Parts: sequence; C-alpha cells; structure tokens
Amino acid sequence: MSLVNRRYHLAARPVGLPTPKDWRLDSVPVEEPGDGQFVVEVQYISLDPAMRGWMNEGKSYIAPVGIGEVMRAGAIGRVSASRHPGFAIGEHVSGTFGVQNYALSDGKGAFKVDPKLAPLPVYLGTLGMPGMTAYFGLLDVGKLKSGDTVVVSGAAGAVGTVVGQIAKIKGCRVVGIAGGADKCEWLVKELGFDAAIDYKAQDVKKALREHCPKGMDVYFDNVGGDILDAALTQLARGARIVICGAVSQYNNTTAVQGPANYLSLLVNRASMTGMVVFDYAARYPEAVRELGGWLATGKMKSREHIVTGLENFPDALLMLFRGENTGKLVLKV
Amino acid sequence: MSLVNRRYHLAARPVGLPTPKDWRLDSVPVEEPGDGQFVVEVQYISLDPAMRGWMNEGKSYIAPVGIGEVMRAGAIGRVSASRHPGFAIGEHVSGTFGVQNYALSDGKGAFKVDPKLAPLPVYLGTLGMPGMTAYFGLLDVGKLKSGDTVVVSGAAGAVGTVVGQIAKIKGCRVVGIAGGADKCEWLVKELGFDAAIDYKAQDVKKALREHCPKGMDVYFDNVGGDILDAALTQLARGARIVICGAVSQYNNTTAVQGPANYLSLLVNRASMTGMVVFDYAARYPEAVRELGGWLATGKMKSREHIVTGLENFPDALLMLFRGENTGKLVLKV
Repeated sequence: MSLVNRRYHLAARPVGLPTPKDWRLDSVPVEEPGDGQFVVEVQYISLDPAMRGWMNEGKSYIAPVGIGEVMRAGAIGRVSASRHPGFAIGEHVSGTFGVQNYALSDGKGAFKVDPKLAPLPVYLGTLGMPGMTAYFGLLDVGKLKSGDTVVVSGAAGAVGTVVGQIAKIKGCRVVGIAGGADKCEWLVKELGFDAAIDYKAQDVKKALREHCPKGMDVYFDNVGGDILDAALTQLARGARIVICGAVSQYNNTTAVQGPANYLSLLVNRASMTGMVVFDYAARYPEAVRELGGWLATGKMKSREHIVTGLENFPDALLMLFRGENTGKLVLKV
Repeated sequence: MSLVNRRYHLAARPVGLPTPKDWRLDSVPVEEPGDGQFVVEVQYISLDPAMRGWMNEGKSYIAPVGIGEVMRAGAIGRVSASRHPGFAIGEHVSGTFGVQNYALSDGKGAFKVDPKLAPLPVYLGTLGMPGMTAYFGLLDVGKLKSGDTVVVSGAAGAVGTVVGQIAKIKGCRVVGIAGGADKCEWLVKELGFDAAIDYKAQDVKKALREHCPKGMDVYFDNVGGDILDAALTQLARGARIVICGAVSQYNNTTAVQGPANYLSLLVNRASMTGMVVFDYAARYPEAVRELGGWLATGKMKSREHIVTGLENFPDALLMLFRGENTGKLVLKV
C-alpha cells in the first residue's frame, strides 16, 4: 500500500484575502527518498502572516511561491523513510516542508528537534521563527535596555507574546496592543504585561498616552496601518521602532498605508528599522538556549493555537488576518 | 535721532502656504541695551524650510512661535550698542535674532563670527545650521562609509549641497534630486555630483534605478512625499535613511503623506532615522573646523542665494517652497 500525499498548491495570486480558488489540493503517492534524501511525515504546519507576502509576485526578502508550487510553510514532522546519513527514521525534524502530508528533503535547512525538551508545536512558536524574530528584533534591532517602556502590536500573536515576555524578563514596562477583551486580559493576567490595549474597542492613541505617559522607548510593530500611526504619536526621545511586519496591510487591494506621522521620527530623534529573521540564522542556537531556559524555569509561557486537519489550511490561514488566533497558530495535520 | 526697528510678527497661524495676512510689520524705536545686554543690527537673515514648522501650533522639537511674537529666524549682524562684557560694538555675531532690523540679546545662543575668515552669509549656510545638519546628519545619523552610494533630495538647497559635497570628499558616489535642469547641471558641473535627477521632468523612481543600480546606501531626505516613496523602492541592503525634513509636506492642508513604501525597510533591513541638529551643539566647532577647512582649500563650494530688503521677507520665505533658491537662501536686510 503506497502512502498518499495531499498537497496544497498555490493556484493563483490572491487579490486581497486569499480565497479557496487560490489553492489547488491534489493527492499523489509519497515518493521514495533518493540517495541523501529522507521523507518527513508532516505533523504540525506553521501558519504565519508572512505567508501572505510569499504569495505575491515581485521582489521581496525571499522569492515568491510560484504558481503551481506547493505552498511554502515551516513545519515539524517525523522522518518516515531515509537514505540520508544524518536523519534516521523516527527522528523529529523542523524545516520548510510546505503545506502537505509528506515532504521529501535533502536536509538543507532542516534540523532535528527533541520532543522530550518541549512539545513539538513549541518548536514552531517560541523556539521557532516567531521566537527568533522576537528575540533578535527586540534585543538587537530594538536595542532593548532595562527600564525601557516597550509597546508591541499583534501582542497576542506568536511574535508579540514572546516580545512582551522577553521585555518583562529584561526589566521593562510592557504594553500590548491586541484585538478583543479576552486577549487583552490574557496578556495582563497570564503573561504579565503591565497593560493591554484593545484596538477594537479603544482609542489606541489615547490609550497609549495614558499607559506610556513618558512615551515609548521601543515600539515593536507587527501590524502597520492605523496602529503604527498611533504609536508614532507617542514616541519617547530616541525611540526605536522595529518593523517586523504589517499584517493589517498584507491583504490590501490598494496601496499600503504609509505612516502619515513618520515625521515624529524627526521630532523625537527616533528610528524605524526593518528586520528579517533569517539574517540571524547563525545565532539561533543562542536564542533557543535562552528562550528554552526561560520556558523550562516557567519565566516564559508558550501558547499555541492548534487547528486540526490539513484540509482546514485555507481557512485556518485566514484566522491570522481576522485576528482569531491567540498565541502561535499551528495546523495539526 | 532714535533708530527704527522694523519687525515681522506672526499674526496668524497659516493654513497652507503663508500669506501676507499671516504677518504683521511694525516699526518701533530701537531699545537701549540693559546691563548684560547688547543690540545687534541685523545684516543677514536665514530663511529655512523649518521656519514653516515653527509657525504651526503644537508640540515639536522646538516651541512654536507665538501669535504676535517677532518671527523666529537665525541671523547675522553687527553689535551696534553693548552693555555686555563679551560683545563689543562692531563685532559680528550669529544668533536667533528674528526677522527684524535690530535685536536685543543677552548673549544666550549668540556667538561671534569673523568676516575675515568667510563672507558673513556663509555663516548662515555651510558654516551655519544647514552645514551642521548636513555634517552630523550624513556622518553620524547616516553612518557614511567610503564607497557608499548616497542620494540626497533637496540637493540644490542649503543642506543638500553640503551633504553631496561631503559625500564626494568622503569617497562616495553621489546622486542629487533637485527641481529643474539648471540646478541639476549646476550640481554635476559645479559641485561634482556624479548625477542629478530633475524631479520636475524625470520619473524619479526610474532615474534612481538607472543611477543606483546596486541601490542606495544612504538616502538623505529633505523633502518627503513622492520622492521619499520613490527612494524607498531603491534601497540597498542595510540602507540608512536620514529624515532631515519634509519640505514638500510643510504647507499641506491635509494630512502628511506617509511613505507607502516603508515596508522596503523590512525587505532591505534598512533604517529611517530622524535628526534635529541642535542635539549636536556641543560638537559644532568640530564641524565648523572641518567644513571651514574644505572651503578654504576649495574642496567645497558654498553658495548663497541672497534676496535684499527686509520688506521682501514674506515672499522670499515662499521661494523655499516654490523651489526657487539654489544654495542657501538669505535675506539681506
């Protein structure tokens, strides 16, 4: 009996939010690994806002997914067949395995993970790309100092939860911006944020004035749009804005909304710096060690939001843009 | 016979471009200096785009000019009466003396200049605030390195001309963006820029692609608006954008145009940093020494655009926003 691999291909470049017709699902027999290859049975697929950007044509920090290609995604799985000396059957690996049941790999960009040290989905969140992004974005790009006032948008998301908790561990005052009272309560009560602003119910500008009377030293932006503009009105002198993403803008059918308040950078001698986590690949072990330590000692909490079933991929991806996930969104295959 | 002081007061906060009714000109007898004071007969008044910002209400890097107050301006003059031990009659001084014939000063923020070392208007340009802005903006904020590709907007203005020439001296490739063929020709032939783009006649985005095929390492922005957005499309990896001003936006009656292409900062791991020259006050002597040396040896050229007559102030100020000046705009009283 040959195993079946179901695969989600990008069928068309979406205009606005991806719709079912932008995907094509097919089923093919699982290939046998060639020499130096192994097969991964994918168990957990990472769903990230950045995936929307990969679906667009044009130059970016990474090549777009081609029309007809299996949709790119980070994932975790179990080696189910191997002719690779470095990966044995039964081992767990993380890599860019795509939205499918089985992936063929030559090991490039794949690395082993230990399910005894942390639950597998955590390797897609706090110990994966989102955690790396938060760690290097906040500490390196944001030049975090103890005592800083830190504001993070998309605070209840995979990156935001880690940003806020690192900042707390480092002795900062932390304000999160998230959508909905439940998320906000969770950020404060469970993750120890000093305050949270519900952008769906509150005037963000006013709330920032209230919670950051001396301005913010670091603003970690995952969302762009009106919230970035509101944040720009409340910068402290010498503030650092980390541009990590702009989830509010990824599905625009018109131009991206530029931050009209950008001249606040001038008034406040502030900076706005973009980052791409891949630049820090050589230093991931350092971050994994430190984040892993915080998780092990309970100083940091990791939360994954798990949706089950490969066939739910198209809709699960949209949860990111509807703001429906709390913590790292993972598709359990 | 008592001397008469003509003074331009801010009469109203302009909406859009300042109009004659936003000013009130009066004439009063020149005051006698009190103990510790001196009187300056103003000879040259600096006209700067930043003055437009000072006319607006609201928090900025400096308090706005109050309604009814003499309009704030940097100026150079001759001490005509003194009861200050540090300033003798006949000495030349630079300071924030305002748009008027005579200013009373207690010496705060005033410093002597030597007309034998440089013509007086140069102390308002290359050896004044614009020169300081260019020097620290490019070298400190822009972190200029030899071999960089540098683009400067408002290239034919007081700051832009100095930015471009410093970059050339430091071994960079320099492209200026200015309005009009004459200015562009002058930048290349007289100031030694490698290329100049006429934003009034050319497609800036396309021209930048042509002149900076490997992208720009430093973009020094004096103008904002569409030109900033075009520049964002042509950043090199790790580019530094210096936000010095946004002359295209100062007279907006609607919101400032935010840079829609700001996510290029992310893609290119680039930064955008605001600056205010006053922060470098302690280091002005260092810049004056170096810029003065370049002027003395002919490595750098200083150009002042001089308009004569205090009564021409309201219209002369508008020349900045109509792009009519080449080099530093100075009002000769």
